Amino acid sequence: MSTIPNADPKALYAQTVTETSARIARGEVTHEQVLESQLGRIAAREPSVHAFKWHDADNVRAQLAAVSARPGKLPLAGIAIGIKDIIDTADMPTEYGSAAFVGNRPGKDAAIVTQLKAAGALMMGKTVTTEFASQFAGPTVNPHNFAHTPGGSSSGSAAAVADGMVALALGTQTAGSTIRPAAYCGIVGFKATRGKISLEGVNPLASTLDTMGWFGRSVEDVKLLASVLLGPSSVGEKSGTIRIGWFPGPEAQQADADAREALERAKQSLSKHGVEFVNVELPPKDFIALGESNRMIMSYEMSRFYEKLYRNKAPLGDLTVAMIEFGLQITAEQFKAEREHAERCRQMFAQATKGLDAVLTLASPGEAPLTENGTGSPMFNRTWTTIGVPCLGLPFGKGDQGLPLAVQFVAAEGQDHQLLALGSKIEALLAQA
Amino acid sequence: MSTIPNADPKALYAQTVTETSARIARGEVTHEQVLESQLGRIAAREPSVHAFKWHDADNVRAQLAAVSARPGKLPLAGIAIGIKDIIDTADMPTEYGSAAFVGNRPGKDAAIVTQLKAAGALMMGKTVTTEFASQFAGPTVNPHNFAHTPGGSSSGSAAAVADGMVALALGTQTAGSTIRPAAYCGIVGFKATRGKISLEGVNPLASTLDTMGWFGRSVEDVKLLASVLLGPSSVGEKSGTIRIGWFPGPEAQQADADAREALERAKQSLSKHGVEFVNVELPPKDFIALGESNRMIMSYEMSRFYEKLYRNKAPLGDLTVAMIEFGLQITAEQFKAEREHAERCRQMFAQATKGLDAVLTLASPGEAPLTENGTGSPMFNRTWTTIGVPCLGLPFGKGDQGLPLAVQFVAAEGQDHQLLALGSKIEALLAQA
Repeated sequence: MSTIPNADPKALYAQTVTETSARIARGEVTHEQVLESQLGRIAAREPSVHAFKWHDADNVRAQLAAVSARPGKLPLAGIAIGIKDIIDTADMPTEYGSAAFVGNRPGKDAAIVTQLKAAGALMMGKTVTTEFASQFAGPTVNPHNFAHTPGGSSSGSAAAVADGMVALALGTQTAGSTIRPAAYCGIVGFKATRGKISLEGVNPLASTLDTMGWFGRSVEDVKLLASVLLGPSSVGEKSGTIRIGWFPGPEAQQADADAREALERAKQSLSKHGVEFVNVELPPKDFIALGESNRMIMSYEMSRFYEKLYRNKAPLGDLTVAMIEFGLQITAEQFKAEREHAERCRQMFAQATKGLDAVLTLASPGEAPLTENGTGSPMFNRTWTTIGVPCLGLPFGKGDQGLPLAVQFVAAEGQDHQLLALGSKIEALLAQA
Repeated sequence: MSTIPNADPKALYAQTVTETSARIARGEVTHEQVLESQLGRIAAREPSVHAFKWHDADNVRAQLAAVSARPGKLPLAGIAIGIKDIIDTADMPTEYGSAAFVGNRPGKDAAIVTQLKAAGALMMGKTVTTEFASQFAGPTVNPHNFAHTPGGSSSGSAAAVADGMVALALGTQTAGSTIRPAAYCGIVGFKATRGKISLEGVNPLASTLDTMGWFGRSVEDVKLLASVLLGPSSVGEKSGTIRIGWFPGPEAQQADADAREALERAKQSLSKHGVEFVNVELPPKDFIALGESNRMIMSYEMSRFYEKLYRNKAPLGDLTVAMIEFGLQITAEQFKAEREHAERCRQMFAQATKGLDAVLTLASPGEAPLTENGTGSPMFNRTWTTIGVPCLGLPFGKGDQGLPLAVQFVAAEGQDHQLLALGSKIEALLAQA
């Protein structure tokens, strides 16, 4: 479980949903008190953190009053969630991080927002995203050190959870937009299997790659959202030895020394607790090229989607313009060849990891870079996004600059609930490290 | 390959994309001639068939001129496609089959439309859908007999393909909205594995169930769209015996006698050609209940999504209002229980069909009903939609009223390309029946 910087550890905002829900069930506190604690935290910290693009305390209070009046037991009753601002909301603006969409009001909620509302969740507001969930950054800073990036593209969602403004927030991942900011902000990040969760009403970056993800400060909290968004889990307690594939990856040497050491330390610590490690063999050349496939597929698709805005000289960030111009040079044949390569790698990964519970790998190249250096590299995430498999990032230790580090567990396609069940165990074991 | 009613079999509009593409490649005909042939067919038949909600011949001609000017080889260059009118298009109206959205112009294309345009396809127009892809029907009739329904909800797309107005068209399926109209119209229908194709910019009916599908007049044509929408296939020629599971299903007795006989005849004919059949055991009670799970999940989700329109007294069809009112009575606990049941059935199906290439089952209860009796029952489709597996409907024979019948092949989750590869073989074998 991650800790919140500069926080009163006894404050309600600093607790997980699992903790506050138990206290609400025992009658010790109310939903209103938890929400007011979070609203107080936002009032105090948002002027520095800039996690939200749109937030209105009275709007959320009104949502809680309405939910409290609803009959029956709702799985997310009264829980406030941060919504990445590329996800359409009918009653809040949705600007996609773009100056071309200032004041944009979609006519309807995204399917995922409808699901959350039906489950009793409150929308805390719209969180800052990079432009179109690409690279051009918004104003959010890393709550652990305001000079550093929270990562992107789900910058505001990661920062809001890390800072105790909300316990849960939605992100998306097309390259490394969920697992990377989770790592930089020291929280739990989860990216689902591609296609498992509807993207109806989510603004596209690259439709072949776009995938839902979300953030929490514990695996249990992350599971709570999973049970609504992925459907209830029927995964039982795993018996027998946990078998993890060891795959620092062919580009591990490009990571910082502290990140590589953390990965080794996680392995040793889990081994000590009886977890069995197996070296995973994946052809290095193919898997390095897979990162490039991600960049090519993304650039090709996003350039076609945003071409009209570009031609009409809409106000676009320089990194977005560069990506569109690059993407428009890619031919349909190249695009097809990259998709074929991705498909071959998907099959190789499935073969190479048969019988394993997950693969342990790097979550990011290291600590969060300084803000002026961008939102960081997705190089240790884009591989997995491209082959569609579920990923779980767990905070683990600190780096040389005192900022959070993390490790990543990757499972077979469709094993989302299994990965989260495993994650709870691993989280407990790593906490003893 | 299906035949077009009241058509000149030598006309270009009556041929498949595979056929016309070969002729274009040989320099015998041009893309412009193929398009003009289809436009002529639309001009002649649309006043009776009513397949399109929006269509403009000059708009499509302009698209072809623009595509012809693009450099490089595009996989769908110059091929006109019908787009179901719940799929957003930035340059054509998108009305969701709803009087509440007359003249609606989405600001952007759905992700799938962007993909098709990038691949060089032309948008022939927006095809009629039932209201919000639910049950309240539009004006489209069955090209084989104007007194009968084309099926729903993808009514216009199925009718347009069956009538030779286009060779390919997009549909969606939440219960039986692709495979059923394909069966009624005597064409090939394909529903992908749930989640494999982006729904960004597709108007939701029930986000847990909504799935992309499409129509063609041959499996080869259907594969052509698959290679763009699902990505290129890496499935090689299958060697060895084809093994098919036999599963008329626990509710087969509710189908018409001619549909049941067609299913038996398909089995006998394939057996004669060396296909091995294995009885598939799935618990009847659970799989009958799965149909009900589909209805409950759909009603729950669509009622939450459309509740605001309903409360604001928007102009909604009576069947839509009834479904919203029914759905609002369903509690979050019931919804959760139905999703749990669906998940159990998903796992049972995966277990029971291991080692099989596909399962053979009914595609519809029989021939297309008369228009006044609605769009027909999705009872033989909703089971498969709910567990997310890919489905291929193939036309096979005629019923007692002289209208088309069909059979359905269902494969394991994610085996989309494999199912289509199998479909080509089966189509050839059934043609010899």
